[in-house]
Amino acid sequence: MAQVTETVQPLFLEDLHIGQQFISGPYVMEESRIKAFAAEFDPQPFHLDESAAQASMFRGLAASGWHTAAVVMRLLVTGGLPFAGGLVGLGGELAWPRPTRPGDTLRVESQIVGISPSRSKPDQGIVTVQSTTFNQNREPVYRFTAKILAFRRAVEPDPAR
Amino acid sequence: MAQVTETVQPLFLEDLHIGQQFISGPYVMEESRIKAFAAEFDPQPFHLDESAAQASMFRGLAASGWHTAAVVMRLLVTGGLPFAGGLVGLGGELAWPRPTRPGDTLRVESQIVGISPSRSKPDQGIVTVQSTTFNQNREPVYRFTAKILAFRRAVEPDPAR
Repeated sequence: MAQVTETVQPLFLEDLHIGQQFISGPYVMEESRIKAFAAEFDPQPFHLDESAAQASMFRGLAASGWHTAAVVMRLLVTGGLPFAGGLVGLGGELAWPRPTRPGDTLRVESQIVGISPSRSKPDQGIVTVQSTTFNQNREPVYRFTAKILAFRRAVEPDPAR
Repeated sequence: MAQVTETVQPLFLEDLHIGQQFISGPYVMEESRIKAFAAEFDPQPFHLDESAAQASMFRGLAASGWHTAAVVMRLLVTGGLPFAGGLVGLGGELAWPRPTRPGDTLRVESQIVGISPSRSKPDQGIVTVQSTTFNQNREPVYRFTAKILAFRRAVEPDPAR
């Protein structure tokens, strides 16, 4: 990929362009965290218990899709999508094409597919980012197309005025 | 709402109809859990620190949107959407129209808006569910339109054959 942005310098709205790409660092899904997340937020047998998961449609322990989504947010926030001012999402569309398993190493690849200046706030824009999360076998486990706020650089006051 | 389903009997595909509604129990967002979730999955100042949050566009501590999403899954799994065989989502569309704050009490109202029999698996269908999560002031904080698997009752073998 030619346009991969390796920098971790935070990017302002005017630094972004359609087609720009980003790759996150890795994250290993640990079985103990998969079970703890599920116990708190998604207490279903196939996320909690090995033998129940074997008997389920997942044919083995699978992370909650919301655990995968949360981990992907961590990967984006910690360098995977270095927007100045942080990552504030308005919403988006997501899909889980395949389960995430204990021991999987996840990585997120993102691409800017849309940039709209805000009508009401001239210092802001809404950027559409398509992210695909792959496991260590390069199988996609999660897709998220998000609308994210981006901010312009603050304009320096003109000292002559 | 006339059609609210109060039962916690798990519902099979043939029990579901368009317009059917469900209401979850309540969930209180605790500040300590908001900060712990953010530290693990969404380490941005406005989710972690009161004074940084005051200075941010959120004007006060706000839960990670993924924390809200995960809590909503808990509410759906623990009675808010009693599908037989559990809740397995394929994907969907989400939006966070308003931040979730420490002390907020969330509740989810869901409605079935679509039912499609599976083409490849005759014992399954894909149900589209629109869920809106409200805080204690009845302000919507999260919307999620999900595609969820639903299962038909197992057919008893005919003893005469």
